[in-house]
Amino acid sequence: MLLLAPALALSLVLSPQDDPPLSDASQECADCHSVVHPGIVADWRKSRHAHVTPKDALAKPELERRISAGNVPEHRLAVAVGCYECHAAHTEDRPDRFEHFGYAIQTIPSPKDCAVCHPAERDQYAHSKMGNAHGNLRDNPLYTLLVETSLGTQSLVDDTLNGHAATRTTENEACYGCHGTRIEVDGMRTVATDAGDIEVPNLTNWPNHGVGRINPDGSKGSCTSCHPRHSFSIEVARQPYTCGQCHLEPDVPAFNVYKESKHGNLFSTAGKHWDFDAVPWHVGRDFQAPTCATCHASLLVTPEDDLIAERTHDFGSRLWVRLFGLPYAHPQPVHGDTTSLRNADEKPLPTTFAGVPAAKGLIDAQEALTRRRAMERTCQACHGTSYAGSFFDKLEATVAETNTMTETTTQLMQRAWSAGLADPANPFDEPIERTWIESWLFYANSIRYASAMSGPDYAGFKNGWWKLSQVPRRMQELTRMLSALKR
Amino acid sequence: MLLLAPALALSLVLSPQDDPPLSDASQECADCHSVVHPGIVADWRKSRHAHVTPKDALAKPELERRISAGNVPEHRLAVAVGCYECHAAHTEDRPDRFEHFGYAIQTIPSPKDCAVCHPAERDQYAHSKMGNAHGNLRDNPLYTLLVETSLGTQSLVDDTLNGHAATRTTENEACYGCHGTRIEVDGMRTVATDAGDIEVPNLTNWPNHGVGRINPDGSKGSCTSCHPRHSFSIEVARQPYTCGQCHLEPDVPAFNVYKESKHGNLFSTAGKHWDFDAVPWHVGRDFQAPTCATCHASLLVTPEDDLIAERTHDFGSRLWVRLFGLPYAHPQPVHGDTTSLRNADEKPLPTTFAGVPAAKGLIDAQEALTRRRAMERTCQACHGTSYAGSFFDKLEATVAETNTMTETTTQLMQRAWSAGLADPANPFDEPIERTWIESWLFYANSIRYASAMSGPDYAGFKNGWWKLSQVPRRMQELTRMLSALKR
Amino acid sequence: MLLLAPALALSLVLSPQDDPPLSDASQECADCHSVVHPGIVADWRKSRHAHVTPKDALAKPELERRISAGNVPEHRLAVAVGCYECHAAHTEDRPDRFEHFGYAIQTIPSPKDCAVCHPAERDQYAHSKMGNAHGNLRDNPLYTLLVETSLGTQSLVDDTLNGHAATRTTENEACYGCHGTRIEVDGMRTVATDAGDIEVPNLTNWPNHGVGRINPDGSKGSCTSCHPRHSFSIEVARQPYTCGQCHLEPDVPAFNVYKESKHGNLFSTAGKHWDFDAVPWHVGRDFQAPTCATCHASLLVTPEDDLIAERTHDFGSRLWVRLFGLPYAHPQPVHGDTTSLRNADEKPLPTTFAGVPAAKGLIDAQEALTRRRAMERTCQACHGTSYAGSFFDKLEATVAETNTMTETTTQLMQRAWSAGLADPANPFDEPIERTWIESWLFYANSIRYASAMSGPDYAGFKNGWWKLSQVPRRMQELTRMLSALKR
Repeated sequence: MLLLAPALALSLVLSPQDDPPLSDASQECADCHSVVHPGIVADWRKSRHAHVTPKDALAKPELERRISAGNVPEHRLAVAVGCYECHAAHTEDRPDRFEHFGYAIQTIPSPKDCAVCHPAERDQYAHSKMGNAHGNLRDNPLYTLLVETSLGTQSLVDDTLNGHAATRTTENEACYGCHGTRIEVDGMRTVATDAGDIEVPNLTNWPNHGVGRINPDGSKGSCTSCHPRHSFSIEVARQPYTCGQCHLEPDVPAFNVYKESKHGNLFSTAGKHWDFDAVPWHVGRDFQAPTCATCHASLLVTPEDDLIAERTHDFGSRLWVRLFGLPYAHPQPVHGDTTSLRNADEKPLPTTFAGVPAAKGLIDAQEALTRRRAMERTCQACHGTSYAGSFFDKLEATVAETNTMTETTTQLMQRAWSAGLADPANPFDEPIERTWIESWLFYANSIRYASAMSGPDYAGFKNGWWKLSQVPRRMQELTRMLSALKR
Repeated sequence: MLLLAPALALSLVLSPQDDPPLSDASQECADCHSVVHPGIVADWRKSRHAHVTPKDALAKPELERRISAGNVPEHRLAVAVGCYECHAAHTEDRPDRFEHFGYAIQTIPSPKDCAVCHPAERDQYAHSKMGNAHGNLRDNPLYTLLVETSLGTQSLVDDTLNGHAATRTTENEACYGCHGTRIEVDGMRTVATDAGDIEVPNLTNWPNHGVGRINPDGSKGSCTSCHPRHSFSIEVARQPYTCGQCHLEPDVPAFNVYKESKHGNLFSTAGKHWDFDAVPWHVGRDFQAPTCATCHASLLVTPEDDLIAERTHDFGSRLWVRLFGLPYAHPQPVHGDTTSLRNADEKPLPTTFAGVPAAKGLIDAQEALTRRRAMERTCQACHGTSYAGSFFDKLEATVAETNTMTETTTQLMQRAWSAGLADPANPFDEPIERTWIESWLFYANSIRYASAMSGPDYAGFKNGWWKLSQVPRRMQELTRMLSALKR
Repeated sequence: MLLLAPALALSLVLSPQDDPPLSDASQECADCHSVVHPGIVADWRKSRHAHVTPKDALAKPELERRISAGNVPEHRLAVAVGCYECHAAHTEDRPDRFEHFGYAIQTIPSPKDCAVCHPAERDQYAHSKMGNAHGNLRDNPLYTLLVETSLGTQSLVDDTLNGHAATRTTENEACYGCHGTRIEVDGMRTVATDAGDIEVPNLTNWPNHGVGRINPDGSKGSCTSCHPRHSFSIEVARQPYTCGQCHLEPDVPAFNVYKESKHGNLFSTAGKHWDFDAVPWHVGRDFQAPTCATCHASLLVTPEDDLIAERTHDFGSRLWVRLFGLPYAHPQPVHGDTTSLRNADEKPLPTTFAGVPAAKGLIDAQEALTRRRAMERTCQACHGTSYAGSFFDKLEATVAETNTMTETTTQLMQRAWSAGLADPANPFDEPIERTWIESWLFYANSIRYASAMSGPDYAGFKNGWWKLSQVPRRMQELTRMLSALKR
C-alpha cells in the first residue's frame, strides 16, 4: 500500500528533453513514418529504446543491466535504439532486404538483430522449446498429420466424406499462429501507399508472430511475440496475459489455471500497484505474488539484492516433468528441438503408447532433481521449505495418476483398432479417436497444470477429473455401439 | 511510460467548485434521491454531464466536440445535464410518464431524449444491426422458433416429452437480455418506499438494457447498454468489457478472441496507462493498441490531429463480410433491420441452405471493397500496407473454407431429414440437429472471429477447427445409429 | 473521475517512520525470515497489520473500526500485529506447536488466533456454509461417493474397468482444494534449510487453504483463503477475483456470470479508480458498481454515512434460495453445517428426487422474505424499488422453470435405472448418469446464476438453456441405444 504507482513514478523521472538523439537515418524514418504509420512511431517513443542509449545501458551495475552484450559497436553507443538501428542491422545478406528511399532496409528484424545488444537471450531462446516450436511441429510427421486432419475441410461426394489437407493460410492462423510460420521472400510486390507505389519484398506466411517463427534470415523465433513492437516492453512480457495468448485451454491451460490460483488472484487484484519494470526484480518489494515470468524467466533478488534466481530465456530450464503429455507426461527433453526424439517403437514421440519414455534425449533423474530444487528455491522466497516440498510431491503423484488414466484410454483405443472399429492409419480423424485424444491432450493435461499451479476447478469439474473419468466408459459404450453397427 | 494516470490528471483539472449549477428541478430530484438511491446520484456526480454544460460543450473545437447537435434549447444551455433534463425531456407524449411530487417524469429516458444533444449518434445507431436487434429476432419466425425451442421447459408424460414454449421472463434474461425487450406500460402500480406509497408506471419486460430495446415511446435502443447510467462514460464504452457483455462465446466469441490476441494482451497489460477519455482519440499517444471501439466506432486521429477514421455509432459500417453465419457467412446487410431479408427459397435467411446469398438487401462487391479499404486504413495507423492487406486476404480464405464445412454438415442434415431420421418441421430440437447447428453457429463462427482478430486458440482447439472437423463424422455415426434403431 | 487513485492516497498518509514498533519476538522473527523467506516479510510490511496497532484500531469511531473485539490483551496493544502475535497466540494447546530457536511457534494460525481481534467475523464465518465446507462434503456419504468416483483412476483388466477410489492428494487438489482439507500433525519431520536442519511438525493434507479447512486445533476455516497472507488485505477480499478462485463454471459460475454482467463490466473498466480499502464502504463514492463483497458481506453506507447493510462473514445470510441444486434449488439451510439434512427418502440431500425440500433444516417462507427484502435494500442503493422487485420476481420464475427441467431429467434417469440400463448403486459413474448430473449440476445452476446476476450468455448458449434443453432428448436417445445393445 506504500507503493507509488509505477507509471507515475517513471513519468517523474523521464521526460522528453532527456531523450538521447536519434541517428540521422532513424530521424528520417521517423519523420516520414510518424505521418504514414503514426501508431508505430508513437509507440516506440514511449519505449526504453527511445530513452536509453546502449552506452548508458552498458554503464549500469551488473544486476541492473538489461543488455547482455559486453560491447556494442561504436556507432550505436550514443544514439537511441531507433528504426534504422534494428531495421538495417544486418542488411548485407538478408533476403528481406529492399531499397527504400535511399536506404537498405530489412522488413523483419530477427533475433540476429536483437542479439547485437541481447546475445545471451538469443542463445538461451534458441535452446528452448519455444524457439524450436515451428520445426517441432512441422518436422514431425505424426504431428503434421494431426494438424492437417484437424484443420482441413471435408466435402461430401455421394456418401463419402472427402478430407482435404488444410491450406497454409488456415494452418498459419491456427497451430502456426502460436508455433510460428516459416517466412520466405517470394520476389517483390508493388504496394500503393499515400507516398506513391513502393516495392517491397513479397513475404510468404505473413503476417505472423508465433514464438518459433523461422525468419527470412533463417533465425528462429520472434522476440516481438512477448516484447511486442514497438515498445518492446519488459512490463508486457512479465505479465501473464502475454504467455496467456498461447498457453490456453483446452490443451495447455496454464494461463487459465494461473488466473484461478491464489497467485493469479493476487496479480489480478493488486498487480496494478506492482513494479513490472524493475531490474532486478525484488520479491515482495516490487511484487507480492509471482507471474509466469517470476518462476520461469526473470532475474529475482531479495529486497536486499541477494540473488534468488538467474534470468533465463530458456523457459523450460527450471522444469523437470513435461506436463504436456505426448501422450504421457515425461521427463523434459534435453534440447528444445525435439524432432529427433524416438520412442522404443520408432515413432517420433517422447513416450510409447504403453508409457515408456524414450531412451535418449530426455533428462535423467539427477538433472530432474537439480531443476526441481532450483524451482523450490524460487518458491521458498515466499513459502516454507516443507510447504514447497510437499507441493511438488503432490504434483508427482498427480503426474503418475493421470498417466495411469492415459494408459487405460490408450489400451481401449488399441483394442478398438485391433477389432477393426477404427482405422489406425490416421489415428486423429474418427469420433472414438477424438475421444481418446481428448483424454490425454485436454483432460490429463488440465489436471497436471491445475496441480502444478493450484487451480482446483481445472483439476475437478472444468476439463479435469470429471471429464477424464468419463472417457473409459464412453469409449466402452462407443465400442459396443460400433460393434453392433458393424454386425 | 510517460503518461500521467488519466484519472489523476482529470482530478487535477476538475473540482466540485467548478461544477455548473443544476436546474431547480434537478436539484430537487437530487436532494431526495441522494437519500433514497444514493448510488445513482453519486455516480452521476462523477459524470461529465455533471461537470460540463451544453453551452461549454458546444464551444469546443469541432474535433474535440462530444455532442453532435448544432444547437441545444436555450433553457438547457447553462445548467448541468441533470436528472430532470433527461427524465423529463419529452413527457408530452410518453406512455411511461407519471406524476411524481409535482413533476411529470418519464421512467425510461430513450434515444429520443439523448438526441437532444447527440442526434447523429441516435441516427447512426438506428441504422445499425444493434439498434434493430429486438425485431431482427422477434419478427423472424425462424429465429423465434429457435428461441422458443431452446429456452422452453420440457415435461415427461408417459413416454412423451412435451415441450412448452419459453416464458417471456426467461426469454428476457437469455436471448433478449442482449437483444433487448419490448417495454410497454401496463397501467400503474403502487410501490411502498421509505417516502411512502408512490404510483409508478407498471412496465412489462423490465428491467432490461439490451442493445435493441424497444422503449415505451417506440424508439429503438438503450444508450445505457454501452454508456451505463448514471456516469454515461466514454471510458466505459471504449473498453472491450462493455462489448464483451454480449459478444461472447460460443456463438459470437469476439471478446474471447480479442482477449487472447496481441491487441487484447496489450490492452490487458498496459491499458491502465491509456487515456480512454480523450476526444479525439490519438493513435499511439492516447493508446497503443486498439480496443473494439477503435476499429468499429471511435473518432481516430494521429498525434498531430490528422483524421484517420470518423466516429460512427453504426458499428457495422466498416465491416464487409458478416462473420456470423446464418448459416453461411455472407455480405453485410444494407440496413441493420434484417427482417425483410429473404433467400432464394423464400426463407427469412440471408443465405440458402446451399450457401447462396439473398439477391436483395446485402451489400454489393463495390461497397464491400470500400468498407474493407476503410478498415485497412485504420490498421495502417500501426501496420504496414502489405501487412494489413495480407491479413484480410487470409480472412477471406477462412470465410470460404468455413462456408465449405457448413455446406457439408448441412448436406448431412438434409439427408437425415430426407431419410426420416429427424423432423425438419422444427429444425432446432433433435440431437442431430443440435450437432449440425453447433457446426456453423459455434465452430465456424469461432474460427472466423479468430481469423479476423488473431486468436489462434479459437481457430484451433478451443471451439475451432478441432471441433468443426469432428462434426461430419459424428453426424454420419449418429445417422447410422438412428437408422439402426429405426429398423 | 474525481477520485485520487487509492494506492497513491494511502502512500501520502502512511510512511515507514510512522510505523509502530514490533514486539521483541516479532523483530527477531523478521530479522531472520527477511533473509530466508524475504517475500513473506516484505508482503507483511505492506499490510495494515504492520502499520496500525490494536490500540489505534480500537480508538477508531465505530463505523470505521476494522476489529470487532471490545478489548485486546494489554501486551498486544502498542505493538504491530507481527509474526509472533499470530504464530504464537495460542501455543499452549496446539498440536502444530514446535520449538523454534527458543520460541514456541504454531505453524498454522487459525481462526482462533484471528479472533483475538476479530471475534465477530470468526463467529459469523463458523455459521456459514463456507466455514463448514469440509464436513459438508466429507461427512455426506453421497457426496463422498461422487468425489471418489469422479477423481479416482481406472484400469483395464481383461475387459473390465476397475475403479480405484481417489487418493487423498488428488482429492486435496480438486474438491478439497476449495472445500478445505483436514490438517493433522503426524509427528515431526526434519527439514534441511539454509540455517541447518530444523524440526517441524509433519502436517498431513498440506499445503491447503480451502475455505472450510479443519485446522490442527480443530477450528474451521482458513481466513487466508480470502485475506491472503501476509498482507491480509481487505482490498483483495473485496475484489471478485478472490471469490472467483472457487465460484466458477461449470458448477458454480458466479464469477463467470458476474464478469459478463453490467456490474462486472463496470468493475473491470472503472474498478481501478475505486477505493477498495475504505471502511465503511460508501456506495457511489468509494465504488460505482457492486462486487461480490458489496452484496454479500461488506458494511455499506451512503456517502453521508447512513447505514445500508451491516457487515457479515456469513455470506449466505442475505440469500433465501440456494441456487446450487442438490439436485433441485431449494430454500437456504438454516445452518451452514448441512450434514444433518435429510430428505423425505432419508437420503442426505436437501430435496427428494421429486423435488420436495427437506422438512427440517431449511429456512421458512417468512425468513426467506426477510432475506429477500434485505438484499433488495442493497439493490435500492442504486436501483428503483420496482426495478429490484421485478428483478427478483424474474429469478423466482427461473428457479421454478429450471427445477421443472431437473424433474424431467431425473424421471428419465429413474426410468433408466428401473429398466436396468444403469446401476443406481453408484449413481455417478455411467455415461447416462453423467448426462443427467450435468443437467442440474452444470446447466440448471448456470441458468440460475445468470438470472441472479444478469449474465445472458450463461442463461443461453453458454452452459445454459441451449445445453439444458438438449438433455432430455439425448437421454432418450441413449436409453434407446442402451436398450438395443442389451437385446
